[in-house]
Amino acid sequence: MALGEFELIARYFQRNAAPRNPAVALGIGDDCALLQTTPGLPNALPPDAQLAISTDMLVEGQHFFPDVDPEALGHKALAVNLSDLAACGARPLAFTLALALPDSSAAREAWINAFTRGLFALADAHGCTLMGGDTTRGPLNICITAFGAVPTAQGRSQALLRSGAKPGDDIWVSGTLGDARLALLAIKAQRGDRANPGAARWLQLPPEMLKLARARLERPTPRVALGLALRGIANACMDLSDGLVGDLQHILEASRCGARLLAPMLSELLASHRLDGTALTSPERLSLVLSGGDDYELLFTAPTSRREAVATAATVANTPVTRIGQIEAQEGLRVVDAQGQRLAGRFASFDHFA
Amino acid sequence: MALGEFELIARYFQRNAAPRNPAVALGIGDDCALLQTTPGLPNALPPDAQLAISTDMLVEGQHFFPDVDPEALGHKALAVNLSDLAACGARPLAFTLALALPDSSAAREAWINAFTRGLFALADAHGCTLMGGDTTRGPLNICITAFGAVPTAQGRSQALLRSGAKPGDDIWVSGTLGDARLALLAIKAQRGDRANPGAARWLQLPPEMLKLARARLERPTPRVALGLALRGIANACMDLSDGLVGDLQHILEASRCGARLLAPMLSELLASHRLDGTALTSPERLSLVLSGGDDYELLFTAPTSRREAVATAATVANTPVTRIGQIEAQEGLRVVDAQGQRLAGRFASFDHFA
Repeated sequence: MALGEFELIARYFQRNAAPRNPAVALGIGDDCALLQTTPGLPNALPPDAQLAISTDMLVEGQHFFPDVDPEALGHKALAVNLSDLAACGARPLAFTLALALPDSSAAREAWINAFTRGLFALADAHGCTLMGGDTTRGPLNICITAFGAVPTAQGRSQALLRSGAKPGDDIWVSGTLGDARLALLAIKAQRGDRANPGAARWLQLPPEMLKLARARLERPTPRVALGLALRGIANACMDLSDGLVGDLQHILEASRCGARLLAPMLSELLASHRLDGTALTSPERLSLVLSGGDDYELLFTAPTSRREAVATAATVANTPVTRIGQIEAQEGLRVVDAQGQRLAGRFASFDHFA
Repeated sequence: MALGEFELIARYFQRNAAPRNPAVALGIGDDCALLQTTPGLPNALPPDAQLAISTDMLVEGQHFFPDVDPEALGHKALAVNLSDLAACGARPLAFTLALALPDSSAAREAWINAFTRGLFALADAHGCTLMGGDTTRGPLNICITAFGAVPTAQGRSQALLRSGAKPGDDIWVSGTLGDARLALLAIKAQRGDRANPGAARWLQLPPEMLKLARARLERPTPRVALGLALRGIANACMDLSDGLVGDLQHILEASRCGARLLAPMLSELLASHRLDGTALTSPERLSLVLSGGDDYELLFTAPTSRREAVATAATVANTPVTRIGQIEAQEGLRVVDAQGQRLAGRFASFDHFA
């Protein structure tokens, strides 16, 4: 059963019965969607608000495998955008979805059904309304643009930026790191990807460990509550998508400073390792955590005087945080061991065109 | 010379010297862009404003030929979104760009250079700032999300919607129609596309005529000034992207009414025909105008009492408009000849999955 473009939109994307964020004045079905920017709406834009906007494009074969569970993909496609809003300290309001689909077969319809299930489950959990989009034929491509509200206080934006880190700040990270990368290496090894370094190594790991890692890869949790709780506390914040080392460089460049990371703290951040403390070597763990990618955790800095406030924010947001280092005036990034000795080795980050 | 992702963004998309729309509080380079929704900014959001949002995805082989002039493509990618804002009566403020590129070769870099030239020329002409985006590897795909401001008057939104048409309204269209479709048929014929109906026919047309048609296909003019001028005058408005017949159906469905279109008026709308009045038959012209697609003109309705106001708006916007029919209470779409006799024939519209 081949569906037409408008039938497809009506059947799977136009959810007349679903609750709509009050900021959405007009949703799907016209040339534009309308977001009400009038101040004072409940749960919508606060007075003097800024609208935070993030866009991410996910491409088959590049960001996900063709046979990935479509429900998980629907979740992840929105999660990576909500993660950007979280990094900014923005409260999610709405999003648009542009989707290129290779066909409109019955199998594809089942795929769309599962995809939207995952998408809307996460959207509804955050009161974030699908307000418009575009559907076309083409190689599978998902482009979501998400909108969130950030208030100002005494005329100053409350948005968390990359540029606010100061020498002496603690460096913090939420949740766990490196598991998504581990899962990716294992899946590639299963598929016989010869370019995959040490493929055989990843095939030997305990299945339970890889299952946990895979869940982290395919269903990341955007740290929205933590981002909101960190407003007024964190000096700088971003979300981790390309790997800790590379992403931290963005904060360092934007804030014109350097950093020291504590290897012993980092090694503990691999969640799947906690299931089997003997499965991975310490250098393997460190490499996964530092150069991982696809973590979608928040990386942030805050003054040492705000440690208690950070702990409270983490409790309020029900999200664990770990202190992993310090911002320094001296430029560059140094990874040090328990004795403060600098570790050798280059830790690269992900680049789509590298 | 292969460029990295961030180098590419810095070199071609981050225009530090370019003027920035005052509504853009934070542009490219952080997790989110920030749009200032505080009322009262000059040229930005008016008090009680609504933000109009449109997103369009262009796919190689689907929306454009792989060898299309990249500068024209940059223009068109933004133009189709500005056309949606125009249809809504919104003033363009800013846009985001997500781009999947197959490679980062030197040839691709030249391509990006030309693409951004076309893109920014149109953006600058409308004071519309690139405020963020995403760049990734993948089959060529361009997804732009554009933002515009619509004011309210006495608490009522001034946005032009599809749902406001009323029986008795005149139906109007801006500019010319059908030329883009003619160009598409001719280009396909040149490429030896056998599925192209009557391919040989299109190869016989005068080259000057096809040149004009091709310009309409590749460099559409978004009718932004007209959309602004029609606020408070038009009852319903939309932009023509899939063809007059199919697009008008959206207004009729949203407004729960029918329409009568005047074939003699329609036949005159093909711009390229004016160069050579003997090149096309009358049924050919009518079919191109009715089922064309890719026109990016405004289709709108207004009370007969506002004909003078429409004429003034057209003059102010320096955009020709033509009255092509009337909204009727009786549902359905009728195309009639000079004697008021209904023409036979089904005029279909474009569907990406048909």
